Amino acid sequence: MSTDALTVAAPPAAPYVRIVPLGGCGEIGRNMTVIETNDDMVVVDCGLMFPDDEMYGVDIVINDFTYVRERAAKLRALLVTHGHEDHIGGIPYFTKEFRDTPIVATPLTIALIKAKSREQHLGEAEFTQVQPGSRVRYGAIEAEFIHVNHSVAGACALALRTPVGTIFHTGDFKFDQTPIDAKPADFARIARIGDEGVLCMLSDSTNAERPGHTLSERIVGEAFTAIFSRAKGRIVVASFASNVPRIQQTVDHAVRFNRKIAFLGRSMRNVVHFAGELGHLRIPPDTVVKIEDIDNYPPEQIVVMTTGSQGEPMSGLARMSVRDHGKFKIVPGDTVVVSATPIPGNEKSVHKTINNLCKLGAIVIHGTDGRSHVSGHASQEELLLMLNLVRPEFLVPVHGEYRMLDAHKQLAVRTGVERENVFVVENGDVLEFTHDYGDKVGKTYGGHVFVDGSGIGDVGEAVLRDRKALSNDGIMMVVIAIDGEEARVIAGPDLISRGVFYLPEAGGVIDELRTELRAAIDGLSVDALRDVDAVKEHIRSALAGAIHARTKRRPIVIPVVMEV
Amino acid sequence: MSTDALTVAAPPAAPYVRIVPLGGCGEIGRNMTVIETNDDMVVVDCGLMFPDDEMYGVDIVINDFTYVRERAAKLRALLVTHGHEDHIGGIPYFTKEFRDTPIVATPLTIALIKAKSREQHLGEAEFTQVQPGSRVRYGAIEAEFIHVNHSVAGACALALRTPVGTIFHTGDFKFDQTPIDAKPADFARIARIGDEGVLCMLSDSTNAERPGHTLSERIVGEAFTAIFSRAKGRIVVASFASNVPRIQQTVDHAVRFNRKIAFLGRSMRNVVHFAGELGHLRIPPDTVVKIEDIDNYPPEQIVVMTTGSQGEPMSGLARMSVRDHGKFKIVPGDTVVVSATPIPGNEKSVHKTINNLCKLGAIVIHGTDGRSHVSGHASQEELLLMLNLVRPEFLVPVHGEYRMLDAHKQLAVRTGVERENVFVVENGDVLEFTHDYGDKVGKTYGGHVFVDGSGIGDVGEAVLRDRKALSNDGIMMVVIAIDGEEARVIAGPDLISRGVFYLPEAGGVIDELRTELRAAIDGLSVDALRDVDAVKEHIRSALAGAIHARTKRRPIVIPVVMEV
Repeated sequence: MSTDALTVAAPPAAPYVRIVPLGGCGEIGRNMTVIETNDDMVVVDCGLMFPDDEMYGVDIVINDFTYVRERAAKLRALLVTHGHEDHIGGIPYFTKEFRDTPIVATPLTIALIKAKSREQHLGEAEFTQVQPGSRVRYGAIEAEFIHVNHSVAGACALALRTPVGTIFHTGDFKFDQTPIDAKPADFARIARIGDEGVLCMLSDSTNAERPGHTLSERIVGEAFTAIFSRAKGRIVVASFASNVPRIQQTVDHAVRFNRKIAFLGRSMRNVVHFAGELGHLRIPPDTVVKIEDIDNYPPEQIVVMTTGSQGEPMSGLARMSVRDHGKFKIVPGDTVVVSATPIPGNEKSVHKTINNLCKLGAIVIHGTDGRSHVSGHASQEELLLMLNLVRPEFLVPVHGEYRMLDAHKQLAVRTGVERENVFVVENGDVLEFTHDYGDKVGKTYGGHVFVDGSGIGDVGEAVLRDRKALSNDGIMMVVIAIDGEEARVIAGPDLISRGVFYLPEAGGVIDELRTELRAAIDGLSVDALRDVDAVKEHIRSALAGAIHARTKRRPIVIPVVMEV
Repeated sequence: MSTDALTVAAPPAAPYVRIVPLGGCGEIGRNMTVIETNDDMVVVDCGLMFPDDEMYGVDIVINDFTYVRERAAKLRALLVTHGHEDHIGGIPYFTKEFRDTPIVATPLTIALIKAKSREQHLGEAEFTQVQPGSRVRYGAIEAEFIHVNHSVAGACALALRTPVGTIFHTGDFKFDQTPIDAKPADFARIARIGDEGVLCMLSDSTNAERPGHTLSERIVGEAFTAIFSRAKGRIVVASFASNVPRIQQTVDHAVRFNRKIAFLGRSMRNVVHFAGELGHLRIPPDTVVKIEDIDNYPPEQIVVMTTGSQGEPMSGLARMSVRDHGKFKIVPGDTVVVSATPIPGNEKSVHKTINNLCKLGAIVIHGTDGRSHVSGHASQEELLLMLNLVRPEFLVPVHGEYRMLDAHKQLAVRTGVERENVFVVENGDVLEFTHDYGDKVGKTYGGHVFVDGSGIGDVGEAVLRDRKALSNDGIMMVVIAIDGEEARVIAGPDLISRGVFYLPEAGGVIDELRTELRAAIDGLSVDALRDVDAVKEHIRSALAGAIHARTKRRPIVIPVVMEV
């Protein structure tokens, strides 16, 4: 937990609504926003972020719930826009603390949350199922769910009606005019809500730097048609498990090209099961085969769909690429379609997977060709269209790094939003709106909470600094035992190191260091030996100096003095 | 150093040439190739690679020189194609070992090598200066330097004539039909050499997956014209220091738009100095001002050129972005052009720099727009043209990850090279050609040699594994002192940890662990206490178990038992 002194002004007596983004602003991941009125509060989304390279050993990053905790009595519901990790991954931690809060979402989103929670064994939560078009009221706040397009089924925007005006949250969206499920975003509802007047819009900024219009999911179909026409052997398609439209396209092409399809991996099979039951996925009978049975068919009649489009080490595709998958071995002539683009930071692992697949003789087609994958997020023309449909008085660009939020601001200004009415915020900024004003009124805890093992928030910057230092140059310990009464060294110095040098070959160096250190200790007077802290510092600096002189490395040096 | 048992067949008595890529095949970086005949040997390039995230604490990665060392008596010269780090960065380590070997290169390349060597204080080397068109003979090997286009001036391909045929090494190249210096690649020489017959070509594979033709450097000029026309404040252009064509374009635009230019940073100023002296850079008088003097001019009359296009933490641009640059502060209204694309792995740091610059109010234009930066490497059409000009009997795709080498192979086959005559090699593969055959005849050491501090090659996989473990979950030490005679614990257990948990808050946990551990030790019999190794293992497993039960973390646990 962060420990900065933060202040939030006391709320006014007059009707107000506060918008507090706790994550996802200035970063990609852990999206979460608090919407709070005088007596009621809802939370929109509760995601996770995957750690970057500097977050040594951290499993995942979640949000600081302090603001919600301090106002828990007002908390009415957690509204979830869609079932991606960066919107639902923090829910198991949220429900653990706020047990009785209903989780409100569309059926597929609920199924994805449940699958996630089961993996984590983190208690049970209360769910309220809604459909696009549903309205639910929580005290002074009414929430309407509105269908939008995205790279997962069941994605919704939210219109949140409050006593001081409507807050419109786009969720993650694109405008796909020719989606696979033939359901474009609900333009009519969005336009009507815009007509009724929107106080403030929070809108997806992921592709705010990208000119033009994001291509339709249907374009991927055209690429698949070309790939399926050409492929002589088996086809493997890797995508996110939650990308139901992509699964549908793969199924459709399997049917069209007379291939059976096998789904590999638990999360992929889970999604196929849920999405099928809920009507988001249509699979003709006799299309699916078990992975164990694919060898009963000639290679040109098989498609395998798996996860691993991000090169995740434990995923189906990564394991295939190093011949470590028990149920599927890549053979020359297989075609592999990596139907995704690498999330920033994953490039190296994705490319490693692709290289390994090439080495095994696979023909690899990856999403960077711009056809076998399309983004799920709106580009500039769609963001402009959304702004012109909703015509908000205020805009809070969300879901993006600073440069994306800033680019989104420039777009908004072009559509007529007043420049000073666009809030490019940091996580934890508290925005307050009344009938008279809209302004930033304070800052709450918006920092990263690290989950490491079973610890939540106990690993902070200090621990990461230690881990970074350890990872750079290793650690060296010196242990001596001192007779406390006689003030003389009775055992040691013993030197123990990890990660400094290759020990089987460094024996000579260790011997030299020990000799040098012994001389340094022998130089100490009896009085000096009685001051344990001074002895420690003496040892530490002598050893650190000796190591640096020999190797130019600076391991952490830890002196241990045992008084016996 | 790697320790695999590797074998290389004894060379034939008949005339032969061996080609041994030691780096750069299956990876981006540390390019180096040995060309060896019966009595003579030259090395082409000697680069470095920057460590990836898994190479904890490693400063740089160089090549294993074993193959050269074992044949040092035959070594005649180090031929260098151009002055980029991945072609020259290993030279200081090479010259340290092979002192008398002349380094043969064009003047700017030599200047860049000298600048590099001076930074490293690594001895003096003997240089042989050549010009494009020069031929130099080393025993049975004659080397001809041929002008090609690349993102640094003075770049050359090499035709190496040997008793069994000509080896053509493209170096890094693109075919720029409208280069800034008005010198397209020497098509006439390349075509003539192809006409004379080429046994084997080694060719740049970086962009072998990219269809079409790499855009001309002149396209960047068009983008710069648009940017300079629009900019109302100062302009900052960041690129690689060695990108002389890009510096020329910036200078040309400064002159055209009536701005003074200041060069920021030692490496940038060095290159401007060398390149100017050697005639690669033309700067009109009264164009350059000192960075200290820029405030004497109105903002619209200033351009600053700096390094940092890769987000390197110590570079000019990165320091500006966090207001840590003593000589230049970004102010709102400044335009920053990041004239490069991120090298894979650098995306996060580049984006961080861009975000920070945006936060300071700068208008940031980055290379991903596809206009303010163009690649220096040939795309598919240029690789095909090179293949059709040179018409080699054999091809060795170099300079690329496996997928790129493989894509290059497919291109070569389309131009008529026999499929079995394309060698997609690993570093260390030994290829041998005589008048009768061309084949792989063995494998030498081609692994990564890590430089860490002053140590070269002493940090290996074992040390990195330790550093990785340390970085994931930290380390915990337990120290006890045992009276050797009486076999009883007389001091400890003391627990010391780094990187496991945040100590000021973990006092309670440490106390619990100590109590648990003391109980485990108390349970040991006197006999058991006499066996120090068994005591250690007992402590290690008891503590590791207790920590995991509490935190689900697995730090390295090191038990130290001092016998007194």
